[in-house]
Amino acid sequence: MTHAVSPLAPAAFPALPAIAGVDLATHNTGLRYQGRPDLLVVRLAAGSTGAGVFTRSKTRSAPVDWCRRALAAGGGAARGLVVNSGNANAFTGSRGIASVERTIASAAMALSCPPEEVFIASTGTIGVPLDDAKITTLIDAIAPSLGTASWFDAATAISTTDTYPKGATRTATIDGVSVTLSGIAKGSGMIAPDMATMLAYVFTDAALPAGVLQDLLTQGVERSFNAITVDGDTSTSDSLMLFATGKAGNAPVQTALDRRLSGFRKALFALLTDLAHQVVRDGEGATKFVTVTVTGAKSPRAAKRIGLAIANSPLVKTAIAGEDANWGRIVMAVGKSGEEADRDRLEIRIGGHLIAAEGQAVADYDEGPVATHMKGTDVDIAVDLGLGRGKATVWTCDLTHGYIDINADYRT
Amino acid sequence: MTHAVSPLAPAAFPALPAIAGVDLATHNTGLRYQGRPDLLVVRLAAGSTGAGVFTRSKTRSAPVDWCRRALAAGGGAARGLVVNSGNANAFTGSRGIASVERTIASAAMALSCPPEEVFIASTGTIGVPLDDAKITTLIDAIAPSLGTASWFDAATAISTTDTYPKGATRTATIDGVSVTLSGIAKGSGMIAPDMATMLAYVFTDAALPAGVLQDLLTQGVERSFNAITVDGDTSTSDSLMLFATGKAGNAPVQTALDRRLSGFRKALFALLTDLAHQVVRDGEGATKFVTVTVTGAKSPRAAKRIGLAIANSPLVKTAIAGEDANWGRIVMAVGKSGEEADRDRLEIRIGGHLIAAEGQAVADYDEGPVATHMKGTDVDIAVDLGLGRGKATVWTCDLTHGYIDINADYRT
Repeated sequence: MTHAVSPLAPAAFPALPAIAGVDLATHNTGLRYQGRPDLLVVRLAAGSTGAGVFTRSKTRSAPVDWCRRALAAGGGAARGLVVNSGNANAFTGSRGIASVERTIASAAMALSCPPEEVFIASTGTIGVPLDDAKITTLIDAIAPSLGTASWFDAATAISTTDTYPKGATRTATIDGVSVTLSGIAKGSGMIAPDMATMLAYVFTDAALPAGVLQDLLTQGVERSFNAITVDGDTSTSDSLMLFATGKAGNAPVQTALDRRLSGFRKALFALLTDLAHQVVRDGEGATKFVTVTVTGAKSPRAAKRIGLAIANSPLVKTAIAGEDANWGRIVMAVGKSGEEADRDRLEIRIGGHLIAAEGQAVADYDEGPVATHMKGTDVDIAVDLGLGRGKATVWTCDLTHGYIDINADYRT
Repeated sequence: MTHAVSPLAPAAFPALPAIAGVDLATHNTGLRYQGRPDLLVVRLAAGSTGAGVFTRSKTRSAPVDWCRRALAAGGGAARGLVVNSGNANAFTGSRGIASVERTIASAAMALSCPPEEVFIASTGTIGVPLDDAKITTLIDAIAPSLGTASWFDAATAISTTDTYPKGATRTATIDGVSVTLSGIAKGSGMIAPDMATMLAYVFTDAALPAGVLQDLLTQGVERSFNAITVDGDTSTSDSLMLFATGKAGNAPVQTALDRRLSGFRKALFALLTDLAHQVVRDGEGATKFVTVTVTGAKSPRAAKRIGLAIANSPLVKTAIAGEDANWGRIVMAVGKSGEEADRDRLEIRIGGHLIAAEGQAVADYDEGPVATHMKGTDVDIAVDLGLGRGKATVWTCDLTHGYIDINADYRT
C-alpha cells in the first residue's frame, strides 16, 4: 500500500554534498519492495570512526544487538554499514541472529575489514524470518557499485512507509579547517521518545575519535530525536549512528568539551534537529507539524515530560487535527504528566496568543488570530508553568483518519 | 453531536434495586443538554458514611478539591451528593471555586446537614464558567422530588458523550445479614489509568464506618477502574465514591480486614469491575473490547505496566480495529514498557492460541481460529514474560475512525 506524500513534506530533497571517504551503493533485493532500492551498503575509508545511540526497547532487534556489541568490541572503528528495508529481522529468534552474522561476514569480506567494524540495520515487518541470501549475494559482488549511488538513492533505500526520503547537511570549521556533515533518516510510524529514532545516519569528513563522536551524539539526540513523537510507540530497531572519515584533515581533538568543536557541535545538533523534524513531518497521517514549548517548569526534565504528555495526548492531537484551539485538553495533559503543576499559575499560548492564565480562560481574548493560526500547517503551543526555570521543546504531529487508515487497513 | 450507541453496549440497563436510605432526584438545568436530565441530587439517610478516590491530575477541578477536603473535614459522614453534566467546572479559576461553594451551601440547606457532608462533581466541557444559579435554583426546591428518580434517570443525568447509561448491582451477606450494592458510572473518553474513572458512585445499605469503606475502595479501584484505558488521557474530574446508609442493620465491623467482609468485598470488587468494563465498552469509537492478561512478570506492578503499555499502544489498538493478529506490535509494546523483559522468553497468545514463543513466531501455527477470534467483539491478548510470578489484567478498546470523528469534529 502506497500513501500520498505528506502535505508537510519539504519541496525537494536537499542537495547533499558527498563526504570524502564515504562510498554508497544501493540495490534492490526483491525481499519485499519492487522498483526501488531497498539495500544500502556504505564503505568508509580506513581510519574512520563511528558512534551510535540505539532503541532502549527490551525487545530490540538482532541488528541492534550486533551494533551495540560491535561498537564496544571494535573501539569505535568503522569501515562499513549495511541497511535493508522491508524486513526488520526483529523477533526472529536464533534464525535472526544467524542472518545478522552471515550478512556481517559477507560485508566484512567484501570490505576487507574485521566484522566488528561493520554495522547493520533492518527495518520493516517484525517477526518474519529474513532471507539474508538475497542480501549476501549482492554484497559478495558489491565492489564495482560502491560510489555509484547518491544520497537520494541511499535515503530511499532505507525507507519503508515514509512518503518522502529525508536528508540534511551542514558545514562547520574545526580550528579553521572546513568540515561537512551529510545525513539521512527514515521513519514515520512507531516513533516515540526515549530512544533514537527509527534509522538515521550522519557522515562527516571531520577527524574525530569515536569517544568524541559518542559524546556529541548522546548530547545531540536528547534535543532532537529524543524530543519527537508521532504515536508514542517505540520501535525495536531504532538506530542513530554518526561516522567520521577524517578526510578533512583537521587537527586532532581529544574531547567533546574542546572549544574548537563549538561550531561542529552546533552544526551537528542543527542537522539532527532538521532530520528529526523531517521524520515528524512524515508522521503517519500527519497534516500539522506541532511545536510544544514548555517553560517555567521545576526542571528541564519536568519540562520535557510535560511537553511529551501534551504531544502524546490523543485528545490534544485530534483537537489539532480538527483545528480546534482546545486549551482545556492541554490543561488536562499537563495535569496527567505526573510533574508538579499549579493549575492557577499555568499560562497557555497558541500561536503566541495568551488564551489561558490564572486558572481560567483569558476573558474575551481575540479568537480570530488563534483560529487563523490553527488553520495553518505549523501549530505552536507554549505552556508556562510559572514554577521554575526548566524548559524544553518537543515536536509532534496531529492524529488524523490517515493514521487509522495506514495502521488498521488489514481488514480490507 | 450525538453518536450511535456503542456496538459493545449491554442489551439493556440492568434492574438496579433501590438502596434503603438513598433518595434520588434528577432534573434538567438547561446548562447544555435539552430533553434529558443533567442534574442528579442524592439524599443519604442520617448516619450514612462515605469514601472516595479521585483523579491524581495536578490540574484537577474545583469539585474534586472540595470532595477531598470535605471527606477529611467531615470524618466520612455523608448526607448528600450533587452531580451535573455538560460543564466540568474545571480550570475556571476563583469563579469555579465560588460556584462549588454556592452549590454546596444550597444543598446543605436543602438537606439540613453541614456543608462538609455534601459531595459534588461536574463533568463536561473544561474551562467554561459554570452558571451555578441554574443548579441552585433547582436544589432550593428539591425536597418534593427526592425519591422520585430511578437509577436509570440518575445514570443518564451524569452522562456526557456516553452512548448508554451504566449501572451494576450485587448482593452479599455480612455476618448473615443481606446487604445490597447499586452503582452507576459515566465515561467514554479521557479515560486512563492512574486514577479513578470519570464518575462512578456506589451505594449500599450495609453499615460500615467510613475508614472501612475507604480501605475497601482503595483496594478495589486498583483492579477495576485503575486497570482500564480508552485513550491514556486522564480527566481533571475523575471521582469514584462509595456510600453506605447502614439500613441493612448488620453487626458493626471496624476494619476492612474483618473476615465477615469477605462476601461484601467480593461483591464490591465485582461491581466495580462490571462498571469499569461498561466504561471501556463505551470507549469513544470502540468496536472491540480487549482483555490484556500479563503473567510471568517480575512483579504485579511490572505486569500492570506492561499490560498498560500494550493497551495504550496506538499501533496495537489500530491493528485490533483492523482485525489483524499483529503480535509484532505487541512485542514492540512490551519492549517499550520500561519493565524487564527477555525477547527470547516471551510467549504471546491471542484468543488462547500460542502464536509467538522463543523469540519468534510459532512455525505454522493455525491462523484460522486466530483470525476468527479477531473478528469477534471480544479480543483476548495474553503475554507471558517467563521471568517471575507477577500478573495483571487490564482492559481497553480498539482505536478506530470513530475516535477521530468524535474528537476532531470541530472543523465542521
